[in-house]
Parts: sequence; structure tokens; C-alpha cells
Amino acid sequence: MQATMPDRTPDTLYQRIADQLAASIRAGTLGRGDRLASVRELARQQGVSMATVVQAYRTLEDARLIEARPRSGYFVAGRTGVRRAAEPETTPLPPQAQPVAVRSLAAQVMSLVHDPAFVSFGAVWPGADLFQEERVRRAVTRAAQRHRASLCRYPTGSGAAEFRRAVARHALALGCRLDPEHIVSTTGCQAAISLCLRAVTQPGDVVALESPTSFGFLELLESMHLRALEIPTHPRHGLSVDALSLALDTQPVKAILAVPTLANPMGSCMPVPERRRLAQLVARHRVPLIEDVLYNPLCAHDDQRRAVRSFDDAGWVMLCGSYSKTMAPGVRVGYVEAGRWTEEVKHLKAVHSGSFTELMELALADLLMQPGLESGFRQLRNTVAARLEEARALAAESFPRGTRITDPPGGYILWVELPAGSDAMALYQACLRERICIAPGSLFSTTGRYGHCIRLGLGGRWTDAQRQALRRVGELAHGVVPAGGAAA
Amino acid sequence: MQATMPDRTPDTLYQRIADQLAASIRAGTLGRGDRLASVRELARQQGVSMATVVQAYRTLEDARLIEARPRSGYFVAGRTGVRRAAEPETTPLPPQAQPVAVRSLAAQVMSLVHDPAFVSFGAVWPGADLFQEERVRRAVTRAAQRHRASLCRYPTGSGAAEFRRAVARHALALGCRLDPEHIVSTTGCQAAISLCLRAVTQPGDVVALESPTSFGFLELLESMHLRALEIPTHPRHGLSVDALSLALDTQPVKAILAVPTLANPMGSCMPVPERRRLAQLVARHRVPLIEDVLYNPLCAHDDQRRAVRSFDDAGWVMLCGSYSKTMAPGVRVGYVEAGRWTEEVKHLKAVHSGSFTELMELALADLLMQPGLESGFRQLRNTVAARLEEARALAAESFPRGTRITDPPGGYILWVELPAGSDAMALYQACLRERICIAPGSLFSTTGRYGHCIRLGLGGRWTDAQRQALRRVGELAHGVVPAGGAAA
Repeated sequence: MQATMPDRTPDTLYQRIADQLAASIRAGTLGRGDRLASVRELARQQGVSMATVVQAYRTLEDARLIEARPRSGYFVAGRTGVRRAAEPETTPLPPQAQPVAVRSLAAQVMSLVHDPAFVSFGAVWPGADLFQEERVRRAVTRAAQRHRASLCRYPTGSGAAEFRRAVARHALALGCRLDPEHIVSTTGCQAAISLCLRAVTQPGDVVALESPTSFGFLELLESMHLRALEIPTHPRHGLSVDALSLALDTQPVKAILAVPTLANPMGSCMPVPERRRLAQLVARHRVPLIEDVLYNPLCAHDDQRRAVRSFDDAGWVMLCGSYSKTMAPGVRVGYVEAGRWTEEVKHLKAVHSGSFTELMELALADLLMQPGLESGFRQLRNTVAARLEEARALAAESFPRGTRITDPPGGYILWVELPAGSDAMALYQACLRERICIAPGSLFSTTGRYGHCIRLGLGGRWTDAQRQALRRVGELAHGVVPAGGAAA
Repeated sequence: MQATMPDRTPDTLYQRIADQLAASIRAGTLGRGDRLASVRELARQQGVSMATVVQAYRTLEDARLIEARPRSGYFVAGRTGVRRAAEPETTPLPPQAQPVAVRSLAAQVMSLVHDPAFVSFGAVWPGADLFQEERVRRAVTRAAQRHRASLCRYPTGSGAAEFRRAVARHALALGCRLDPEHIVSTTGCQAAISLCLRAVTQPGDVVALESPTSFGFLELLESMHLRALEIPTHPRHGLSVDALSLALDTQPVKAILAVPTLANPMGSCMPVPERRRLAQLVARHRVPLIEDVLYNPLCAHDDQRRAVRSFDDAGWVMLCGSYSKTMAPGVRVGYVEAGRWTEEVKHLKAVHSGSFTELMELALADLLMQPGLESGFRQLRNTVAARLEEARALAAESFPRGTRITDPPGGYILWVELPAGSDAMALYQACLRERICIAPGSLFSTTGRYGHCIRLGLGGRWTDAQRQALRRVGELAHGVVPAGGAAA
């Protein structure tokens, strides 16, 4: 059973208990490997229900502060005991809006994702081993049996009603109350964003977005002859609402495209108060915010899974999502709830692509309505967190001194800042020669600011081949650091 | 087993026999209901194989000149013995290119297609009863079982390899030899055309197309701020290549969008020599031709199923198709082979929508590779031909004198020209009041030339309710004919 996310979680009972324990862990009162009180004990101590304690422990598990050991109880987690990399700092102030030209390099990176001769860290495509193939297949077969008529009948334009209802229900976990009638199915999140941009911009318009940002977004803008205005972004706290506010006052911004939760590539998550401010800001300026919630279920912080859309009651936020990163990468179904532009988006979908096969939407609706959805997400978060932690530790050992690496609360990405002046394109080329693909930082901006950065996509296979390749990227990086840089 | 279509069919043996018999039927030598020689007899008479005679008889069946009666043999078919409507004439000379604005009326017509309170002749969506639901469902279930890994793996950008191979094989029946590597899957034919237009035009450009044309095309142009240059079109022989040639000499046409086989709404089919001329013309002018082959398998004339693309060896023709009108309306999978613009189209697909669920492509590949594909198309052609003939006869009885109705060799559409000066919008409104939806002629052009026409889409359910509604449309039409018009 899903519930609307409360307005501010810190005031709830379980969160208060979790906060107290987290403070004790951070202060060293509870040390690595220490056993915590049992659920029953703590419930008695605090005078709360056992369910509340379970929820508090889960929150701490999600934050990777504690871990459950089967039949033993809960223990304070130990960060891997290797050299820790520092995290990057806020990206710089906004430049002028720029035309976009990342296409050919992006195409090269993406062309290698499916090449079995390469170890690819180039894409953010999670691998099949993270998901429940058999469960997905059964849902598809059930849908094909139950809805056979849908295969030989033209579908309605907005998508299968069951799917739209399931999305509305799942959106409750993002804090959003959506009307299924206003939801439109798409072939994924990028397709949803493409529809939104077409609905609210004309060629030449300025679109504000995080810096660095997804190269898929830059390719979209490039293809539509839009200009990108990059907004400073903090590696942990995301888009700077102050900087965006300044930009809205001084530049002709026609739309904002943002990923408030686990923004690609830095994995930043906006704090809840900033989400509220962002919603208020776009309403005041009457500018549409295209919000990408693709990664929200992957965020370890319960409160930061909440969408900016949940603070918008006047339709300025266009909500875009899909389940390719969280449930079934090969089931290419996404959605958009476009607020004030709902009719325009429905029209654009009908005209440019018609309706889509309902079967996949029905299968996804089935999966979304099954019990265990949230625990499936929790399991995925934990698996991926362990992998990111391991990768971060490997990178910290092999990359040059002075390298900074993000430490995101979820997702499939590490963003690596090599020492200033390092040549990430040279590193990209050196890696290609050894059949390893990484994504050079210049792909993630129109400003040329990230020439010393790389993105590592870690959602694919994760075996010794990948571990070894990751170490090798770090070794090769020593060759692209400017003289004196590696010793800094 | 499919074979490439021969360059000119009239020279082949079966066609010669069919032509002789057709001439005898047209001359009255063979009268309505006459029994033809048995296959064995005729083979002996003509000194040819029985297979050749079977093929000749099938050709005549497709042309609705003869009919097979189970266990009795072949008989000369009788056109229904009611009053026959005349056919429309060639549409007028090309005007200047026009901006497009059909959107709101089109939206109203389409919104009623799924409304059970209405009898809808508004869309060209074939109904489930025309297709083999169980066969489609089995193909989907098989694909889900055999390719379960595809559900949890990001698909490659161009589409499933099996699907692209199946399309290439089926394209042989259109006379085209395609490289599967150059084929890109889409979510339908309209999506394919949208990609092509985006690849070859900029806002403000002029696109030449048939007149009248599909309102879906006009909506696409409107949405992309393109201007429509309408080219005179003959109800039987299609786009006037002479008029197009003139237009290419005198106007800045950036692309041509054409449906050489069963063009919507008139059902015209270009003769094969004109197809060859069209291919030569666009190559000479170095202008892309976007060719829609959606309806080709529905055409009763074997030779006119051949695509213009088959005469193009330099990549000027962008071939767009899907199977929504011919195999499974709910399986929204189409394709494009974009000639010189293949890389551009692949890029646009990747950026604007990413890849699609491979499962539906795999199911369609399965269906396309099954034996009996061509006989399935033949059966569909015969069913639909009988329905169109019945509808045409009903219309001839009930519509005002002076009404002209197309007599297309296949497809789901009749195009009705009321007497000059009739107000088809008033008829549309009158029909709506009686819960019947038709498509008024003004939707099919930017020129305002078809204000006295309507399109009847007859692919949906076909029961007494539809028959009665069709008669009623004809009766209501008497009320919109100008004074004296009905008596003309």
C-alpha cells in the first residue's frame, strides 16, 4: 500500500529515531560493526511501535549507515576502509545561453554500448541482472492473454487506462496526486521530454538546465535548435535555485529542464525546501518546468524521492518519467503529465507518433500494481549502492591524487573530476585503445567547462572485467594530468 | 515464398491470360454469372501450366471480375445491380504553398472514433474483426517466451534485427531490395514520416503532396510549421507527375510526401510507368520523396503494389510503412528506410524517443515470416472489397443525384463528392446530431477546394447499424445540396 509522502518527513516519529541514531553513528558513539538494539528492545526503550523502529532502521539502511545481517540483527555499517576520494564542488556561475553541438561524440560513445568487445562505462543503461526478468515476462504473457483484443484494435491516443491509473497510483510515492485522464503514455522518459519541449518552445528559444547535464538532453536541444542556459549545480544539493532565479530575471528563459533527484551526471538531489522554492519560482515567472523523475525511486533519501510537481498546484510543472531504469529496461514505456500543456502534448503525440501498443502498458500496469513494488525498489537501491561504493573505492585507489568523485545517494553513475588541467578527451582516447569506453566530460555541457571530467556509468554488467577496467581507467588517467598535477 | 515483383507484369504469361479474359468480360463475351473453364481445361487449351491459370484467375479475382465458388469453379462476377455512382475527376491545378490549419476539426473527428455512442466513419482504422487475433496473440506470447532477456535489456537503437530482416523480406513484395541495416523501426507509419520530415525540412519549408491528402499529414506539417503545396491528383491514377514536375521547376519544394498506392482519401494508385517517372524526377531534382507504403498490400492490382522506391537506386526515396492497416492494428510497429538520410533518421529516433520495446517487433517479425502471409493479404483484400462495393451501392441509392463516389481497388475509404456548392460541413454537423461521424472534405486540403466532399472510413465494424447510418448520411446530404443542385 502506497501513501502520499508527508510534507516534511523529519517531524515523523521514525525519522526522529533515525536522526538520533545517525547522529550517534556520525559522532562515533556507535562505531563500525557495533550491534544495534533489537527492534523489540528499541521499541520498548522509545515507547514506540515495532513498525516505527523497523521504518527507522530501514531509513538508516537506505542511507547505508547500518546493515541488516540475516538472523543476527542490525549493525553499524563500515565504509570500505580504503583511501576516500573527495567530492567535487559546486559548478560555476551561469554563462550566456549557448547553441549545442555534442552530437557526433555522443553517437560514438553510445555506439560502443552494445559492442561486446568493449567494457562500457559510457551509458547509464542498467543491466538485466538487476531486474526480475521472469516476473516481467509473466506480466507480458498475462497481458497478452487477458487483453488479446487490444492487439488488433487501434489504441486510444493517451495510452491504456490501466497504465494511466497505475502511474497515478505510483505517483503518490512521489508525493503527487495526478488525474489519470491527464497522463499520456510515451515510449520512455526522453520521448516525454521531447514532447514537452516541443509543446513549450520554438527554435532559438533558451532552455535552462543543470550544469553538467545529460548529453541526451543536449542532443535534444541541438536537434530542436534550442539554446542551453546552464545553471550552477551542487554535486549533492543539485540545481541552484538562487542562480536560476537570477537567470529568470535577466534572460529570456522559455523552459526549465531539471532532474531534481539523482541528476545525471552528478547524482545530486535537491533538498525538499529547495524543491518547494523551485515550484514557487516557476509559478511566479510563469515558466514551465519539465521535471524528470526517472531516477526518483532509486534515491536512498525517502524525502528526496518527492517530486517538485507535488508543490505545484497550478500546472507549471510537466512531470516526465519511465520505468526503464527501475523496473524493466526493455519495456520502453514512459509517461508525461504536462500540467497546463496537457492538451498540446496529447495533440503532439497523436500527430507525430499516433498511439502505442497497449500491451506493454498493460504489462507495466500489472507490475506497478503488484505488492512488493516498494521492497523491489529498496532491494535495487541496496544492490546498486553496494556496487557504487565498491567502484568508488576502486577509483579512489587508482586515480591520480587530487581526483574528486561524487558520492551520490543512488543511481548508476559516478562523476569524476580529474585534477585541473587534465585532458579527459585524451583519457577517453587512451581508454578506447584498450577497449574501454567512458564518457568524456565535454559531452555534458556546452560551456567547455568539464574538459577535465569523466562520467562512469556503472549500471551494466559488474564482474571482475569491469573492476579491472575501472582500475585501468584510473591508471591511464595518470597520463593525462598536467605536469605537477598528479603530485598536488 | 515471396519473390521480387517483375519489372512489367503485362508481359508475363498469367497476366496475358488474365488480360484476355478481362477483355472478354468487359466486351460482354463472358456475361455476369457465366462459368469459366476449369483450371485444368484452360491450362490444356492454352498450353500452359495449371499454376499459371490459377495465378491468372487470382488476378481476375483480385480485380473483382470473377469469383470462386467453393466446389463449383470460377464465375464471372456481377457488380451489384443497383444504380452506380459516377467517379470524381482529377483535382485542380496546384495553388501556391499554404500554411496549414486543420488541427481543431481533425481533433473533433478523431475524438469520436472511440465513442461507443457514435457510428464513426471518421477514421481509417480497420476493426479487429478483419484480423487474426489469436494468431497475433500467439506470436506475442512466443516472442515473450523466446526473448525474455529483451524485456530487461536496453534495446539497440534501430530495432530488433529479426524485425528488420522480416521487413526487408516483405519489401521484396513491394519490389524493393533493402539492407536490414538501413531499416529503422518506428511506432507506426506516421511516426516514420514525422522522422523523415524532421530529417529533411526546416520550419517554413514547402512540402509537396497529393490533393486531397490525409489530414494526419496536414497536421504533421502544421505542427512543424511547414507549408503544403498540393499537387493535382487523379482519383484512379494518383499524383500527377507532370504537375509535380512543373512545381519542382517553379517552387522551392524541399520534400515530397506521397502515397502512390491507395492514397488517402481517394484511394488512387499510380500506374507503374508513372512510378518510374516519379523516381526519375526526384533523382533529377535531388529532392527527397517520402513514400508511404502503408496500404500497398491492400491493392487489388498486383503491379501497383510495387513501391516507387523500387525504381530508386540513389537513395532519394525514403520508404515508410507499418502493419497497422494490414496485420494487427494494435501492434504499433512501423519502419523507415531513409536512403541518403538513414544516419540522420537513426539519430533523430535515438534523440527524440530512444529505442522501442523489441518484443512487439519480434512478434511482428514472427508474423511476417509465417507462411500464408500473402494469402492472408488476399483474403483481407477480398473481404474489404466486398464491403466497399456494398457501401458504394448503398451510397449510390441514398445520396443526391450528381454525387460522385470513388471506386478504389482496395483500402477502407470512399471519397464522396456531393454536387458542386453542397455544404459538407453542414452535413458533418447534421450527422453529428444523429450520432454519426463523417470526415468533412475541408480537412483534406489547405485550399478550401473540398468543401462539398466527405470521406467515409469503412474499416471499422460493419453491421446493420453502419449500413443504416450510411444510408442516413446520404439522406441528410439532400439537405445540404444548393437549390437546383439535387435535380442536376
